[in-house]
Amino acid sequence: MYKAGIAGATGYTGVELVQLIHRHPQLEVGWITSESSAGKCLSDVHAVPWAYPLIPLHEAYDRASEVDVVFLCLPHGHSIMAALRFSATGVRVIDLSADFRLADADSYRRWYGAEHSAPEMLPHFVYGLCEIYREQIRGAQLIANPGCYPTTVNLGLYPLAKAGWLGHHIIVDSKSGVSGAGRSTKLAYQFVEANENLTPYNVGYRHRHIGEMERVLNGVSRNGGFRFTFSPHLLPVSRGILSTMYVTVPAGVTESQIRDLYAETYAGEPFIHLLPAGQIATLRHTTYTNRCAISITPANPDQPEGQEYIIVATEDNLIKGASGQAIQNFNIAAGLDETAGLW
Amino acid sequence: MYKAGIAGATGYTGVELVQLIHRHPQLEVGWITSESSAGKCLSDVHAVPWAYPLIPLHEAYDRASEVDVVFLCLPHGHSIMAALRFSATGVRVIDLSADFRLADADSYRRWYGAEHSAPEMLPHFVYGLCEIYREQIRGAQLIANPGCYPTTVNLGLYPLAKAGWLGHHIIVDSKSGVSGAGRSTKLAYQFVEANENLTPYNVGYRHRHIGEMERVLNGVSRNGGFRFTFSPHLLPVSRGILSTMYVTVPAGVTESQIRDLYAETYAGEPFIHLLPAGQIATLRHTTYTNRCAISITPANPDQPEGQEYIIVATEDNLIKGASGQAIQNFNIAAGLDETAGLW
Amino acid sequence: MYKAGIAGATGYTGVELVQLIHRHPQLEVGWITSESSAGKCLSDVHAVPWAYPLIPLHEAYDRASEVDVVFLCLPHGHSIMAALRFSATGVRVIDLSADFRLADADSYRRWYGAEHSAPEMLPHFVYGLCEIYREQIRGAQLIANPGCYPTTVNLGLYPLAKAGWLGHHIIVDSKSGVSGAGRSTKLAYQFVEANENLTPYNVGYRHRHIGEMERVLNGVSRNGGFRFTFSPHLLPVSRGILSTMYVTVPAGVTESQIRDLYAETYAGEPFIHLLPAGQIATLRHTTYTNRCAISITPANPDQPEGQEYIIVATEDNLIKGASGQAIQNFNIAAGLDETAGLW
Amino acid sequence: MYKAGIAGATGYTGVELVQLIHRHPQLEVGWITSESSAGKCLSDVHAVPWAYPLIPLHEAYDRASEVDVVFLCLPHGHSIMAALRFSATGVRVIDLSADFRLADADSYRRWYGAEHSAPEMLPHFVYGLCEIYREQIRGAQLIANPGCYPTTVNLGLYPLAKAGWLGHHIIVDSKSGVSGAGRSTKLAYQFVEANENLTPYNVGYRHRHIGEMERVLNGVSRNGGFRFTFSPHLLPVSRGILSTMYVTVPAGVTESQIRDLYAETYAGEPFIHLLPAGQIATLRHTTYTNRCAISITPANPDQPEGQEYIIVATEDNLIKGASGQAIQNFNIAAGLDETAGLW
Repeated sequence: MYKAGIAGATGYTGVELVQLIHRHPQLEVGWITSESSAGKCLSDVHAVPWAYPLIPLHEAYDRASEVDVVFLCLPHGHSIMAALRFSATGVRVIDLSADFRLADADSYRRWYGAEHSAPEMLPHFVYGLCEIYREQIRGAQLIANPGCYPTTVNLGLYPLAKAGWLGHHIIVDSKSGVSGAGRSTKLAYQFVEANENLTPYNVGYRHRHIGEMERVLNGVSRNGGFRFTFSPHLLPVSRGILSTMYVTVPAGVTESQIRDLYAETYAGEPFIHLLPAGQIATLRHTTYTNRCAISITPANPDQPEGQEYIIVATEDNLIKGASGQAIQNFNIAAGLDETAGLW
Repeated sequence: MYKAGIAGATGYTGVELVQLIHRHPQLEVGWITSESSAGKCLSDVHAVPWAYPLIPLHEAYDRASEVDVVFLCLPHGHSIMAALRFSATGVRVIDLSADFRLADADSYRRWYGAEHSAPEMLPHFVYGLCEIYREQIRGAQLIANPGCYPTTVNLGLYPLAKAGWLGHHIIVDSKSGVSGAGRSTKLAYQFVEANENLTPYNVGYRHRHIGEMERVLNGVSRNGGFRFTFSPHLLPVSRGILSTMYVTVPAGVTESQIRDLYAETYAGEPFIHLLPAGQIATLRHTTYTNRCAISITPANPDQPEGQEYIIVATEDNLIKGASGQAIQNFNIAAGLDETAGLW
Repeated sequence: MYKAGIAGATGYTGVELVQLIHRHPQLEVGWITSESSAGKCLSDVHAVPWAYPLIPLHEAYDRASEVDVVFLCLPHGHSIMAALRFSATGVRVIDLSADFRLADADSYRRWYGAEHSAPEMLPHFVYGLCEIYREQIRGAQLIANPGCYPTTVNLGLYPLAKAGWLGHHIIVDSKSGVSGAGRSTKLAYQFVEANENLTPYNVGYRHRHIGEMERVLNGVSRNGGFRFTFSPHLLPVSRGILSTMYVTVPAGVTESQIRDLYAETYAGEPFIHLLPAGQIATLRHTTYTNRCAISITPANPDQPEGQEYIIVATEDNLIKGASGQAIQNFNIAAGLDETAGLW
Repeated sequence: MYKAGIAGATGYTGVELVQLIHRHPQLEVGWITSESSAGKCLSDVHAVPWAYPLIPLHEAYDRASEVDVVFLCLPHGHSIMAALRFSATGVRVIDLSADFRLADADSYRRWYGAEHSAPEMLPHFVYGLCEIYREQIRGAQLIANPGCYPTTVNLGLYPLAKAGWLGHHIIVDSKSGVSGAGRSTKLAYQFVEANENLTPYNVGYRHRHIGEMERVLNGVSRNGGFRFTFSPHLLPVSRGILSTMYVTVPAGVTESQIRDLYAETYAGEPFIHLLPAGQIATLRHTTYTNRCAISITPANPDQPEGQEYIIVATEDNLIKGASGQAIQNFNIAAGLDETAGLW
């Protein structure tokens, strides 16, 4: 039985992680930290029956040796120091923040508008998009868990990019449930503001998550240099992301070739759900699961060999888009069955 | 054309009031105050196209003479001073807070846990439950607009209380949309917390609004001395209150007598919607209207002369439960058509 | 006082129309038809207090002379015969179905997959997109009320198209509340299926409403021949449509020129809400109003003279997208104040 | 590894059962039936990736020997014949319908308004409310899975009833998510009808589920003969039931004694979550779990020894209120760990 420490467990990803660990046959909770609720227990701040004590983060550093893995669910920017201190103890670290997701300091500066305070650490973190970087994840000690939006986009377009079939300009229209914004109390996320509403934000080439799309898709493609237009929308649901992607493929590539490509690329993947022709992925295909559902639709039914496609990819942003994929990363890194605790 | 000043216009009741005034044929906006957003305009803080400047409250006192009525949409506790200062200028004041809703200082202390800072003003405010106190409202200069929950309970039970047919113990199970909590950013009102959830709170004999039920129903009844069990629940809708009330009537009183009593009591009332036998009031009967819908159902269909009844009353908490009734109060006080601006 | 007949009043657009007429100072309900609920009254099938009798359609033909205008809220395909019979009596007809929205029989066949049964009538109907075809609507006897999706797309792109600045390929990612599907009881529109879900459907070049986009935008543009990729999504809200449109403009055209173009085009329009730079249209800007909100955002903030823009347009699908625009059409046709009953 | 047959698997309880079985370490799917979708597979009618073929019910009878347990998720009234035919083969039957939940033919006639067609079978079915009838369930071949509402009421009041402390008149105000109505396409359950609404129905002494409350609470209590007022409400959430119960206890019984009683009664129960003083059960405490959360609140904080209490009990209606409890029943009957597959 492995033990997990969870730093920052009172946000939505933290408590989701605790619930996933409760179902995991080989992993159990060691300790849980919370700055704002230290001294209380988890059942005081979430509607769960588990009375784990919430300790402050500084106590956790001394207790690193009690656990086999530390999951960092800290706010962006707070993970860097925590990752340094935990990794120095030799414990495995899986960081759910954005602090180590980009490949280098330039990209970080471009997307986060600040200097990374430990840029030398960036190359030591594996980007934990399991289906694409599984080999690097095996045995890894430092893993950066991917962002929620990029997981749908990268999994949805990876086969095309890898094959060199992905057109240069990619338009992604994404819709995310409100839990993606975290458990902070901002006006925009109040029930009355978000309910019966739909709010586009940071449309175009503005959202930080584009950095992860560029990293992955440019990285796996022979032609690279993709141009992204990415428009996220705040959706009045609690959980789930749906990305509608408008792409082109080279003349001569047929729908059937594309379907074969996806089927081969994801053959045997336990968490990829490829939809048959005629069906389109919905949130419902993936909420409360660790799956990513992907559908492929040619834009114009009257032009069977047309070059324009609509790829839709969905996930549960708190599971495959965060805590579930973190568990999947742990399973791979520790050499367990990759699906353990994720059914 | 009358002019209105609105103090504290960026909350939900304030902006609802502005929208109602926009439809009103004889009332228009004079000035609007906001402490937190002073210097901005209304369209900066709400998704409305009207660019009214938001002035700080202290400027409004000097501009009292520009308007015919001031609506106070201030947080509870902040209305007392504002009411004193505005009323000293001779302008009509309609207070949407709870500060002047109770009849005396003892009752205020009992339910608000503090001394009222201007108890001598309490008798000068008319309690603006229009259908019950219409005569006192005509020409009134100082009106306390009722609370959202009590409006459903008092309108739903007034005929029985007035007739002396209302049993001593009243159980009210109320469910309110989240806008009832105001536009404050508390964790409990975040979308992810409130959505797909239902949260009872302050159940039993704890909620401040019981004071208004005691004031009205004890006041209109010959037998009085009612005992209330009142359980509010936070409902995952933006607007609307539904109160399910469990009451008893004296032996010998028939359903048909009760229906006649309600029909007579509310004959000609433009905003009371009495449902026919067999139908039950829902939120949908009243949302986005100034109506209160009321249904009467005997508890046991096999005991036609039974004494137990389930009265359901619904309203839109932002309209009949707040800003709509405030307009209705203004219409009555100013001698206008009572329904002006409320269709 | 004008009188309206409403054919097919128990669907969502029908009952919305009744509610709008109730607020209209110069229009009142004459008669209302319903096939499925004939013999009942409106308050039996909707949570409204108005007990209008529901008569079968065939009785309405004999009563055409009692009203000044007939609104057809019939299912698609059923309006053709009704329009013929009512128009033969000389009464003004405003058809809310899709039966007369396209310009000619070829286009109808292309998008509806069937022959139009009265193609000679098509040229006699004015396409009632008020802000664009106002002059033709004045005095018109036969008006085809536009579809809900095309209203957002056509109003959102009209200025660019008219100026000849709209790039050849237009990608529209639309999201619609469930009332857009009508009051039919299909599994996909059941609460449990639609709630906490998001469902793309008919993505690409498949949805019938593309015909209306082609008609309007090709018609008003000098360059024409636009290619549409249109992807509708079923959104878990009751009302509202948001269309996110990805367009290009010619090199050299600046954001400031585009803003000026929109401001001039829509100067004085009571129902167009142009958002200032930095704000994006949301559903909340328009629900429960007859407005269309439009925002303009350059895709890349680092390329101020870039050619790619994201236009977002929103509306309430039951008001500006259906019954409100029908009233607006009536107001224009009858020579009334265009905003009567629509505030 | 045990195998399960599921009769009627395309409703909400059926597909929930399939998902629970997928997580169960000792149970797997044998066959699945569907009348309406026979010939298709499960992934054609639900957004799940498992392509189980859907066979017609009559084929299942011949394949009874392939499985160890048959779960009947058939519409009410259709289970009787299926239960007879399956039980005749010797296979264990767990019936999720209402057909065998009541103790005798009289009670069935009273609440279902018809004669039971196999009344001699009623005594052979164990009423599968696990926490109360665990001993009878062990080894049982025929189990009637309880109704969703009664599970909250019976678990919430069982300790008081058993102790003889439950007052004679019980008022239950229940609120249920829409999935409780099944996957039928009725107007009331359409998104636009149920969303932003709250609908009381069958209030008082009308709902069939009262029969199960009478059976259990009268059965376990020494004083018995309880009188129920039960008012269900349709709540705009997908899943979850919350019952607010207004009860009295004998004079002299203290809150502390009641808390001790509940703690002792449910000591060691894995699926009962007793909330501490000051907290009230919400839907969130139990959705997506097999738990029942129970809170106890004295009505009046100023009368510490008062006799009136508000008991709130919540559950996920599809899990503890249906398919989860069915699995729990199977686990108990088959001698497995009671929690297998239910974390």
